[in-house]
Amino acid sequence: MGYLENIETPADLRKLSVDQLPQLCDELRQFIIEQTAKRPGHLGSSLGMVELTVALHYVFDTPNDKLVWDVGHQAYGHKILTGRKNQFHTNRTYGGISGFPRREESEYDAFGTGHSSTSISAILGMAMAAKMNGDSKRSHIAVIGDGAMTGGMAFEAMNQAAYRNVNMMVILNDNKMSIDSSTGAMSKYLLKITASPAYNRFKNHLWNLFTFKSNQSNKITDFFGGIGNGLKGYLLGGSNWFQSLGFRYFGPADGHDVIHLVKTLQSLKALPGLKLFHVQTLKGKGLDMAEKHQTLFHAPGKFNPDTGQLISSNTEGMPPKYQDVFGHTILEFARKDEKVVGITPAMATGCSLTIMDKELPERVFDVGIAEQHAVTFSAGLAAEGYIPFCNIYSSFFQRGYDQVIHDVALQKLPVIFCIDRAGLVGEDGATHQGSFDLAFLRLVPDIIIASPLNEHELRNMMLTAYHNAKNGGLPFVIRYPRGRGVLVDWHNEPEDMEIGKSKVLSVGENLVVLSLGPLGNNVQDAIQQLNAEGVHVGHVDVRFLKPLDEEMLQTVLAQYPNVLTVEDGTEKGGLFSAVAEYIKEHQLDNKLYHVALPDRFIQHGDIPSLYKEVGFDVDNIKQKIKEILS
Amino acid sequence: MGYLENIETPADLRKLSVDQLPQLCDELRQFIIEQTAKRPGHLGSSLGMVELTVALHYVFDTPNDKLVWDVGHQAYGHKILTGRKNQFHTNRTYGGISGFPRREESEYDAFGTGHSSTSISAILGMAMAAKMNGDSKRSHIAVIGDGAMTGGMAFEAMNQAAYRNVNMMVILNDNKMSIDSSTGAMSKYLLKITASPAYNRFKNHLWNLFTFKSNQSNKITDFFGGIGNGLKGYLLGGSNWFQSLGFRYFGPADGHDVIHLVKTLQSLKALPGLKLFHVQTLKGKGLDMAEKHQTLFHAPGKFNPDTGQLISSNTEGMPPKYQDVFGHTILEFARKDEKVVGITPAMATGCSLTIMDKELPERVFDVGIAEQHAVTFSAGLAAEGYIPFCNIYSSFFQRGYDQVIHDVALQKLPVIFCIDRAGLVGEDGATHQGSFDLAFLRLVPDIIIASPLNEHELRNMMLTAYHNAKNGGLPFVIRYPRGRGVLVDWHNEPEDMEIGKSKVLSVGENLVVLSLGPLGNNVQDAIQQLNAEGVHVGHVDVRFLKPLDEEMLQTVLAQYPNVLTVEDGTEKGGLFSAVAEYIKEHQLDNKLYHVALPDRFIQHGDIPSLYKEVGFDVDNIKQKIKEILS
Repeated sequence: MGYLENIETPADLRKLSVDQLPQLCDELRQFIIEQTAKRPGHLGSSLGMVELTVALHYVFDTPNDKLVWDVGHQAYGHKILTGRKNQFHTNRTYGGISGFPRREESEYDAFGTGHSSTSISAILGMAMAAKMNGDSKRSHIAVIGDGAMTGGMAFEAMNQAAYRNVNMMVILNDNKMSIDSSTGAMSKYLLKITASPAYNRFKNHLWNLFTFKSNQSNKITDFFGGIGNGLKGYLLGGSNWFQSLGFRYFGPADGHDVIHLVKTLQSLKALPGLKLFHVQTLKGKGLDMAEKHQTLFHAPGKFNPDTGQLISSNTEGMPPKYQDVFGHTILEFARKDEKVVGITPAMATGCSLTIMDKELPERVFDVGIAEQHAVTFSAGLAAEGYIPFCNIYSSFFQRGYDQVIHDVALQKLPVIFCIDRAGLVGEDGATHQGSFDLAFLRLVPDIIIASPLNEHELRNMMLTAYHNAKNGGLPFVIRYPRGRGVLVDWHNEPEDMEIGKSKVLSVGENLVVLSLGPLGNNVQDAIQQLNAEGVHVGHVDVRFLKPLDEEMLQTVLAQYPNVLTVEDGTEKGGLFSAVAEYIKEHQLDNKLYHVALPDRFIQHGDIPSLYKEVGFDVDNIKQKIKEILS
Repeated sequence: MGYLENIETPADLRKLSVDQLPQLCDELRQFIIEQTAKRPGHLGSSLGMVELTVALHYVFDTPNDKLVWDVGHQAYGHKILTGRKNQFHTNRTYGGISGFPRREESEYDAFGTGHSSTSISAILGMAMAAKMNGDSKRSHIAVIGDGAMTGGMAFEAMNQAAYRNVNMMVILNDNKMSIDSSTGAMSKYLLKITASPAYNRFKNHLWNLFTFKSNQSNKITDFFGGIGNGLKGYLLGGSNWFQSLGFRYFGPADGHDVIHLVKTLQSLKALPGLKLFHVQTLKGKGLDMAEKHQTLFHAPGKFNPDTGQLISSNTEGMPPKYQDVFGHTILEFARKDEKVVGITPAMATGCSLTIMDKELPERVFDVGIAEQHAVTFSAGLAAEGYIPFCNIYSSFFQRGYDQVIHDVALQKLPVIFCIDRAGLVGEDGATHQGSFDLAFLRLVPDIIIASPLNEHELRNMMLTAYHNAKNGGLPFVIRYPRGRGVLVDWHNEPEDMEIGKSKVLSVGENLVVLSLGPLGNNVQDAIQQLNAEGVHVGHVDVRFLKPLDEEMLQTVLAQYPNVLTVEDGTEKGGLFSAVAEYIKEHQLDNKLYHVALPDRFIQHGDIPSLYKEVGFDVDNIKQKIKEILS
């Protein structure tokens, strides 16, 4: 049909003439739409990046030149153009290619990403390596969104970059969005640059230079070198935020004009030193529905590739998502108590804090991609008597770890952390699995850690955490998974729980299962099946990893010779370790077994496949129990 | 004698007239010098803050107005003026007051600090609380150094601040220093502001307004409101870095002119909204030696309060500091292999990377206070075949945790982390103890964790890590404590160790001690004393927490019925847990005991007192062994 089918690697792409690129972009965009329509993925950001992706691989000598995609979910076009077109139908599936760049997957993936704001640090390391190698020719490019630019780590990297003279370009992909709309000063600032008339005059002059006299990079250098800093600052209007960090600023450019992008990148390529190239793109570009509903189409489910119409499966009669239970419950509390506030670092839609935001926007704080700040900002609110529910995904919570220890736990400030996406998340894969939070939180003193069996327990735990905070109690973590719970009738009247108190779900012989969190439902199913076979074992919903219910432990360890712990976190340091420590501290003889995540990174795939792999499914749990008993 | 003796709280301070303040500052400075000369502490930064501290408490209504000191080691003057003058002789001593602000210690300590760059997040939380409470009068002030300003978290907080209109002032204490000289774009930028002639003309105009027409805040508001943004940006020269983040910029001001500071702060107090006040101070101000040798006097030992002469104890014949062993050893490696590089986030002097920096500055990277970036920057270098030794203090390493997991371990990049200040650090207290690294690292897949018994082992481990990296091995952590080792003759020819292999130190009966790291020396002493009493127990230097030497475990668990683990980290999740897991996974019956840090935050004090408290001293270990055997 067209050009795309003949492109295996960027070398093939470079055989095209510049004026053939717009058609290639159309084909690439269509390919992404068709593929993602069938197998859900991150659609919007990859559509917005089509022209820039083509232009980058056209102009730069990848994989020799280094290209790092911040976050990485915008890199579908990159994957398709770099040898993975024919595997792209396996994107995000079990055993298939990853939805994010991975060094193991391709030499074109210079650095694996998934979490935000890492790209400038990584590319600076590579640029410094080239400099030390005496290589002044190699190009180093980080592509980073305006949302990711607000992550503190990006700033840290820019601050250092200026200090050593390296050959490196940051491309700021300005689409006014992270997953939700970008917030904060940076976002306002970028808007101001774009709107500044003084700047636009200057820009036109610059673009004329680029467009009509391309490859005259000396002239550009002269132009920039020849004007004084003060005048440059004036001409650039507000744009010297980047200049003041030592980056030469170029832009904003239309990120959907591929010919213009190619010419500009060719000029910039010849320019040594630190450059920031500001590109404006439209998230969802080329699919009408995705352009109009950007948050929804960040990662839609299946859809009609022609119309963009979402193909919604019938969810009637299904249990709600834990996210929505959180969202409705915090709103209920907030309506009754004006001290209740919600905080999230750029995950308002994903965690359903949007439900509260619609009714009480002045008490919802989306702080941008800024986990560290989110935690300490919550601590500041708690210090003043507010009840902050700070909602962060488990794997991103790793980034606020020091703040949890140093600003929250050490000061015993009653912040309530709702840790979403705990346990396995599925298709997003290794960078996003919530494997570690139980273990890395348990070792922190003066903190309460809970995980609900189901939606009712989530609501009960939120109420318990609320009252605990109201009474000046300890920091309180509630961790729960992505997706649907198990109760259709989820809307109970929430009740206070006793902190650190477990619940006996069944009584049996020889073996007791101690489960933490929703995986307990699989345990219940397994036990029911075993009951039918005449096997009866005990089951306790541990509920609190910390403080651990020692009274319960004393009782069950006296009663059952065999103990099986079940948790959706790593086997190193979580519930299994806590029970092992208890048994050893009390010099008991119980045999201890565990179901937990193995000590390795878990890749992407659908949850049923991953559960089978790690033994979380009902069959495997049943089998495990039988093995222990035999 | 003077004013200071009559000041218990800021209320007393406010009874003085403005022109009495310079004398008070002299007295306060002298008090700090005399106290710190006898009991070592953070001298330089507190001396630099004397005038600003007096001015802040004079002008603002503390503790009602909220004042947060970033990092907090500059807050000695604050402590002395807020009810702790008579306890100040206990500063940093066991059971005495803390060297950092602590909420538990005083209502004037609005937020505890210790780690860098948290103050803006915390004060923003408080300012937002006031806003929601309808309180538009209360002032909120964060005092942050130019070094701390480069920590990404500070930027994250500033980015959010602009989004909601709150009453808040950031005071930028610009002394061109963190512990070492500040590096990076921010530092250059601040210099540029100060030097800009256009700006200085503007500044003089502004200062005249302030100084001669104080309390005319309306006029100032008019003045600022009346000029357009473009013109303002022009007049301010480079200064609109802060403006572009939504902060009104004021400064730079002389931080040692207390009368001027009072008048300026009075004007700024009346101005609502977001303000950044840039104050220039001299670290060590008022003590000649401290002004001249700022890094040395950041936290000197004892000194002569009149001359500043350091009172150095005779260190001849003493073992070296682990820090210096690291510093000399990396230099030895770097001389032989040009791929060896050193990275540290603003701890070059503390970790002795300065030794390499003197000889090979182009391969040493002090990236500023930026732990997150330091880790991923190292990963970028490792991806290009360099051998990065990334040196970070244990408690600050918490801030790079996500990057260790996501950018290093997940990609199996052979970064070598040298974790300094592991275990108890002593006088710096709870915020700085390296209690958690063993536990939070053990749960990370694909990482090697080692801790040396002594200086020879440190060098051997560094060589092993180097060869491991050279061969594309896994990330490698070496953790060691602050201060001196045990071997005077430390400079061995380093030898490769087998990764994951422990070393038997003594053989005995009934009990084996498994120790990790330098605490093993106390175990050896205890065992020697026990030998004299006819008691002989086994002792293994575990060396590697991960991978754990399972072959050794199999052997000793078969040989000894009792096992005692000894580690200078938390009892939750470290070596004790690892051995408990192993015993339970293998369904063995050994009795297991442990010496480890209890599951609570450990406060400040001298190491011998803290060691007694937690049972790390020889006597306690000996006693523990005897108890187990009886």
